[in-house]
Amino acid sequence: MSILVMKFGGTSVANLDRIHRAAKRVAREVARGHEVIVIVSAMAGETNKLVGWVQETAPLYDAREYDAVTSSGENVTAGLMALRLQEMGIPARSWQGWQVPVQTTSAHGHARIEAIPTDNILRKFREGMKVAVVAGFQGISPEGRITTLGRGGSDTTAVAFAAAFDAVRCDIYTDVDGVYTTDPRICEKARKLDRIAFEEMLELASLGAKVLQTRSVELAMRYKVKLRVLSSLAEEEHEGTLVCDEEDIMESKAVAGIAFSRDEAKLTLTSVADRPGIAAAIFGPLAEAGVNVDMIVQNISEDGRTDMTFSCPTDQVLRARKAIEESRARGDYSFADLVEDQGVAKVSVVGIGMRSHAGVAAQMFRALAAENINIKVITTSEIKISVLIDRKYMELAVQALHDAFGLDRAA
Amino acid sequence: MSILVMKFGGTSVANLDRIHRAAKRVAREVARGHEVIVIVSAMAGETNKLVGWVQETAPLYDAREYDAVTSSGENVTAGLMALRLQEMGIPARSWQGWQVPVQTTSAHGHARIEAIPTDNILRKFREGMKVAVVAGFQGISPEGRITTLGRGGSDTTAVAFAAAFDAVRCDIYTDVDGVYTTDPRICEKARKLDRIAFEEMLELASLGAKVLQTRSVELAMRYKVKLRVLSSLAEEEHEGTLVCDEEDIMESKAVAGIAFSRDEAKLTLTSVADRPGIAAAIFGPLAEAGVNVDMIVQNISEDGRTDMTFSCPTDQVLRARKAIEESRARGDYSFADLVEDQGVAKVSVVGIGMRSHAGVAAQMFRALAAENINIKVITTSEIKISVLIDRKYMELAVQALHDAFGLDRAA
Repeated sequence: MSILVMKFGGTSVANLDRIHRAAKRVAREVARGHEVIVIVSAMAGETNKLVGWVQETAPLYDAREYDAVTSSGENVTAGLMALRLQEMGIPARSWQGWQVPVQTTSAHGHARIEAIPTDNILRKFREGMKVAVVAGFQGISPEGRITTLGRGGSDTTAVAFAAAFDAVRCDIYTDVDGVYTTDPRICEKARKLDRIAFEEMLELASLGAKVLQTRSVELAMRYKVKLRVLSSLAEEEHEGTLVCDEEDIMESKAVAGIAFSRDEAKLTLTSVADRPGIAAAIFGPLAEAGVNVDMIVQNISEDGRTDMTFSCPTDQVLRARKAIEESRARGDYSFADLVEDQGVAKVSVVGIGMRSHAGVAAQMFRALAAENINIKVITTSEIKISVLIDRKYMELAVQALHDAFGLDRAA
Repeated sequence: MSILVMKFGGTSVANLDRIHRAAKRVAREVARGHEVIVIVSAMAGETNKLVGWVQETAPLYDAREYDAVTSSGENVTAGLMALRLQEMGIPARSWQGWQVPVQTTSAHGHARIEAIPTDNILRKFREGMKVAVVAGFQGISPEGRITTLGRGGSDTTAVAFAAAFDAVRCDIYTDVDGVYTTDPRICEKARKLDRIAFEEMLELASLGAKVLQTRSVELAMRYKVKLRVLSSLAEEEHEGTLVCDEEDIMESKAVAGIAFSRDEAKLTLTSVADRPGIAAAIFGPLAEAGVNVDMIVQNISEDGRTDMTFSCPTDQVLRARKAIEESRARGDYSFADLVEDQGVAKVSVVGIGMRSHAGVAAQMFRALAAENINIKVITTSEIKISVLIDRKYMELAVQALHDAFGLDRAA
């Protein structure tokens, strides 16, 4: 059996015509001899409509009911896709999450898949069924309630099915024709990549690239699922971008892509005591308050006191400030001032080539300096360098770095 | 435990505001000390939208996928209703058909409920839950697929739950404030009934009154479920109409109500052989072709040949003609002519009082004669008399009969 997983996102099944076009792509793969597991999202707009209804009905909603309501959009698409395939003469049927069953944790709204029993679907394949259409984004908790995996969860469903069924590949159909060196809306020289390494994709996804959900890339990396990103809107058949093992990549540039995140804020606590445990005292309460602290830098100490700077999404600044004031009131630590800068953006260069190419950081800083862009915070990891800069320079920085690392040309 | 079942139809949950109003009615019953099982339909229009999508996707659809798609509307309402109740401080949760599980036959699109295990919901009631919100119209087949009960199936869900949980009453909230002597749109003197017997309601429902689904009345009668029909739109609390045992009804008029059915057709086979087995030869193939033959009359025989007349819905005439021509071609029977009259309507008077009041038929025929309305076909049962008349006289006939039997006055 040669099982292929194909996932169609919301824009790829936005209406009956799009569902028909997606079904034709599935038919093509069936004709090539694959058994296909199709993972579908809700028709574009449906989930937002349902979420709106839930929020209007109950601002402080019960996440279990939220999941029961919002999972229904995928069920509709799954049934319609199965019907369309049957009309084309292809034996197909739909599965809702609980029918597989996709077993998840009880963390409603952001559950994790724990197991996907394969016997049910494999038996149908052996009986001659060619396509199993599965509603993405959803599962069932140990208590028998419906769960959802969170926004973008259908990507994760797709990769988890590919891993469970040992699929030859997992094709993610979306509204772009692959993974780009950066967002073409920001940089017109952006170029589609033929291949990208899991690690790079993971960094790009967590640094702001929206093409794949971070969790799905993690899973694909762990279970060695060959992941392909391609467009459901393109008329011609195309290869898209293959997300794969480092070893399968021929080109070896220092930098593979540039990610950015627009809505960042920088907060600085001035003159905090430079003592062991101070970081824990500051960031423990912030984590408990649900603030996603990203970059952290600590200045050199002067007279036993230092400045502590961190970044977080702009919409969490209020929450961060409240947590910090509460910490001060409790006497956890003292500081002179809390300085907020809500006008910053994060730009990151990512590439496994950095491991072997020296001087990538220096090259990055030079390119930004040449454009007179001031760097406010820097963090690095083995395969990425991120900087915080004034938001107004974000596009300029992305374009300058794209040029500096020659991303408009193939390796 | 004092369990009450409350069912809200599509217009009663048509939008978030209506759901809110319905939730308030539920809260009132909780305050009175009831545990409440709420059965909800899809928001008005949702099921039609889904059915439209299915038909456009696959004109000859797989009924299993049809059910998987069309059942989703009720799930959305169930979740929203549970959320609304929680917001009002009432412990509530939603159940989809498969979670109860509502066990049905595998007859997709028109499944029958076979069992409703109560342990799951009763345990939650014992743990302090006050309201179980159940998605109506749906269940699960022995094969684990989602089934639906057919249009109006939520009424049946409600009565089946009331029977299974031995509920004190089953309140059906709809867009009218009760069962009327006849349709107020046809006859302005129509009067709301305080009570009506199961048998009468059953006849009225099957003869064209749309207020309750026939199957739900059958079930209520068999399991002695006290059924109440009332309006979810009325501002004031009101009693609606109680559908109950004959013995619980004080007033005993000969006629309780008048039903009508507009889209009837009359077909006559002239000069068929009057021999044993001729009726079976004619009506067997019609039944197999899916024609719902309603009234049948056979003229007196002349020279061993007779005329056979029957009625069926107008949209089945084509199918009936085809089946008859095929029978003739096979040599099942011969006839001279097939005469079609698609311009007729059926008017019926219904009342358990007929059993004890003689002369109801004569009174009916006199009233119609006084208006110069010609009767084309007559059928009777123990508690109803139906006549087929020209469609153009239908309203006039209903009004004349309403007057003749004094239905505008309470007994």
